[in-house]
Amino acid sequence: MVENRLDVLFNPKSIAVIGASNTLMKWGFLVFHNIIRGGYKGRLYPINPKEKDVFGIKAYPDIKSVGKRLDMAVVILPAPKVPQTLKECAEAGVKTAIIIAGGFGETGEEGKNLEGEMLQIAKNSGMRLVGPNTMGMYSSTANLSLLMPPIPLRPGNIAFLSESGNLGTTMMQSAIVNGLGFSRYVSVGNQADLKIYEFMEYFIEDKTTDAVLIYGEGLEEGREFLNISKRLTQKKPVVVYKSGKTEAGKKAAASHVGAMVGSDRLYDSAFRQSGVIRADHSFEMVDIVSVLSRQPLPKGRRIGILTYGGGWGVIASDFCGMYNLRVPQLSDEIIREMDKFMPPHWSKGNPVDTVGTLDISIFRKAVETILECDEIDGLLVLGIGGYSFFIHYYRSFSLLTNYQLSQMKNLLCDTEAQIAKDLIGFIDKYNKPIVVTSIADVVMSEAARILEDNGIVNIPSPERAAKAMASLVYYGEYLRNVKRKKKK
Amino acid sequence: MVENRLDVLFNPKSIAVIGASNTLMKWGFLVFHNIIRGGYKGRLYPINPKEKDVFGIKAYPDIKSVGKRLDMAVVILPAPKVPQTLKECAEAGVKTAIIIAGGFGETGEEGKNLEGEMLQIAKNSGMRLVGPNTMGMYSSTANLSLLMPPIPLRPGNIAFLSESGNLGTTMMQSAIVNGLGFSRYVSVGNQADLKIYEFMEYFIEDKTTDAVLIYGEGLEEGREFLNISKRLTQKKPVVVYKSGKTEAGKKAAASHVGAMVGSDRLYDSAFRQSGVIRADHSFEMVDIVSVLSRQPLPKGRRIGILTYGGGWGVIASDFCGMYNLRVPQLSDEIIREMDKFMPPHWSKGNPVDTVGTLDISIFRKAVETILECDEIDGLLVLGIGGYSFFIHYYRSFSLLTNYQLSQMKNLLCDTEAQIAKDLIGFIDKYNKPIVVTSIADVVMSEAARILEDNGIVNIPSPERAAKAMASLVYYGEYLRNVKRKKKK
Repeated sequence: MVENRLDVLFNPKSIAVIGASNTLMKWGFLVFHNIIRGGYKGRLYPINPKEKDVFGIKAYPDIKSVGKRLDMAVVILPAPKVPQTLKECAEAGVKTAIIIAGGFGETGEEGKNLEGEMLQIAKNSGMRLVGPNTMGMYSSTANLSLLMPPIPLRPGNIAFLSESGNLGTTMMQSAIVNGLGFSRYVSVGNQADLKIYEFMEYFIEDKTTDAVLIYGEGLEEGREFLNISKRLTQKKPVVVYKSGKTEAGKKAAASHVGAMVGSDRLYDSAFRQSGVIRADHSFEMVDIVSVLSRQPLPKGRRIGILTYGGGWGVIASDFCGMYNLRVPQLSDEIIREMDKFMPPHWSKGNPVDTVGTLDISIFRKAVETILECDEIDGLLVLGIGGYSFFIHYYRSFSLLTNYQLSQMKNLLCDTEAQIAKDLIGFIDKYNKPIVVTSIADVVMSEAARILEDNGIVNIPSPERAAKAMASLVYYGEYLRNVKRKKKK
Repeated sequence: MVENRLDVLFNPKSIAVIGASNTLMKWGFLVFHNIIRGGYKGRLYPINPKEKDVFGIKAYPDIKSVGKRLDMAVVILPAPKVPQTLKECAEAGVKTAIIIAGGFGETGEEGKNLEGEMLQIAKNSGMRLVGPNTMGMYSSTANLSLLMPPIPLRPGNIAFLSESGNLGTTMMQSAIVNGLGFSRYVSVGNQADLKIYEFMEYFIEDKTTDAVLIYGEGLEEGREFLNISKRLTQKKPVVVYKSGKTEAGKKAAASHVGAMVGSDRLYDSAFRQSGVIRADHSFEMVDIVSVLSRQPLPKGRRIGILTYGGGWGVIASDFCGMYNLRVPQLSDEIIREMDKFMPPHWSKGNPVDTVGTLDISIFRKAVETILECDEIDGLLVLGIGGYSFFIHYYRSFSLLTNYQLSQMKNLLCDTEAQIAKDLIGFIDKYNKPIVVTSIADVVMSEAARILEDNGIVNIPSPERAAKAMASLVYYGEYLRNVKRKKKK
């Protein structure tokens, strides 16, 4: 009945925070605050024998004295105190517990015994556990930010499981800056009880989740992972960043979450077999899941590249080649079509290079011409959102009049913003993916903001954009292969 | 006499801007403005028969009517007009000319002829050319920002040559945000006359330059490149990002700068032979040159990793392994030393994991203990600067008092800032490199600012930090090998 228990985990109506504290900078202080700050709407019960209340909410000396059957308990106490506390939770009928403390299986024999003791208590009572050695969890459907560091998450359609709490929260921070949102997040810790594959199984039918992101070190239950991945990827894309590739990495993983890491080649082949997309760099994870959670899948490997800078086009082509995508020459018909509006010395080929023209409105026509034709399955757009910084620079330049500045804003920023809006429409109209790289500091760019508000993340380099596009291609091919096999 | 002519190029006392314009959003308008905005102190002569003055500076109908021998002319006119204009420049005794327009060798036979004609004029007169198809140049010693896009460069010790103008300016934008400065920048364009290797030769003795960064597509003069690289790398580190690795990339490079790209394996072996460090990703270029231009070279391959998050330590170890660095276990003696101040469940090994303690002052002690011992040649510090965002989040949280906020700021931000200052001292004291990754949004972090102001760039991921450290190791080994061979 993992589904039911995970329903409770992601939608708890009541939570006891054991170790909640008024003392600044204790984790019991921070976690409690993050829950409140995140807008959790259920009932909260701080448990602390030394406090009358925690931040104005009535505190209880122990869980028994709450006198109710609670959906969840978070235990923010040092490892040696955890088993006894869990026993009390089990007796009080708590359904799920989250164990923050480290100092268990990852530290050696003594810690392993403590972890075993804890697990036995849970097994006997039917209570399910997250952790130990976890940094918490998030659930959009409960407004629940049960996290150690303060991360202002926004709801979205991506579920994220991480064997490293720090990596998880940093990745989410980076994702939020880029406009991405999450449905669920679990820092799975040592996985004494609840395992990554159990959460994955839950996500198969989870309506708020459209894509799954995983950071793994051990992924020790290989068979279960493989089987559930195969079922999950048929419905939703799964992106995995798996570390522990080298001996140095494996050694570090063992001391981190006590993981026994197997051969990387075996993992790689398991991912391939089950249609899991593998990221090769931490930040790539976010790029890839962002496109897979939002963009249509390309019908083939033929990629168009539109760029305002020749070098970026070369690099994007290079990496498309590395990922076995094709960058086909355009037909004479399309070249003639584009000759009508492109600047005289444009590249007359793919990459389509606008060779530094400042009439950026041609970007719109170029995008539509490429998407309309049936020679291209997906488009990399390198440059949109990259002109807005001109204004910031010239604004502080006293020689320019306000009229000139407003003209410049109109020609650059407003045009870019309009193109951004058009791009969003084109994705739906032509049912082809557009992966966007601004290649410039886009913090202030309205175009970038419009794209983000519509789920189109600016991917900061053409190399990473090519990888994101390749991921769309691979996942599309995997699904078509699965379908073909089923027909037979 | 390439040196003399390049002295003039990087320190021109007078510049004619041919095509300078008052018309908003023409390149002749933007380049002229960028020169003024950049603070160029020499004499400027806008040349435009249709204008009396350009932005208040007296304009001339042609270069002859200036009536002086000028150090430099920038030609911002369409390709067909360039040869005649250059002839006039030659007759007026201009020493160096920069040709902005594209539409030459990269576009086919006709353009190639135009380029040949241009080159002949230069050869006959002894005038040297940058371009055509260049986006301009920068020189710190002349306060000269002769660039198409507006980039507010700051002076520094890195010289940068780029076969792509857009890539060049974007990389510099990204570098500036991270506090890096440049001594020289040249968008070399089609290299009709002045070649990358000639600039490299100049940098050997250039006192304002400590490191050289190159983006190459063709690098067609292989023998010259190899010979000059060998001389240059003995004095200064050279970092190259070379595209055109795959067939798709080579095709794109041909249409971009007309480059004939050879076998990537040959380039790779040439780089190795000559001690050139190769970057594999555009943004890596900046990481690598930033550490090579600032940090001491490690004496060996033994890398220490200090992290506040276990997962980051695993990933850093993984990538150290991939780059053939060692992540050695620490001796019992050092472990015992660290037991005195580390939290109870710390990793007791390398990576040194502070397992989520909020007493971040221990970072300082850990860094010094690791650097002091002779078991480690270089240190990756993952996490400094990553706690400041706590404050931004809680500041808008009304439940916290100002006193609590100031306490939190003191415990996190101020401690981090102090550690940042200490780190800078440690690099000199122990003469070992420290590569820093904040792994968090550091825009607002004082610690990150202190590091940047002292030339220590925050490298945004542990994967990239490992690569930067590996580059320091490789360059150190290359120099030691060269020395050894010389002794024999």
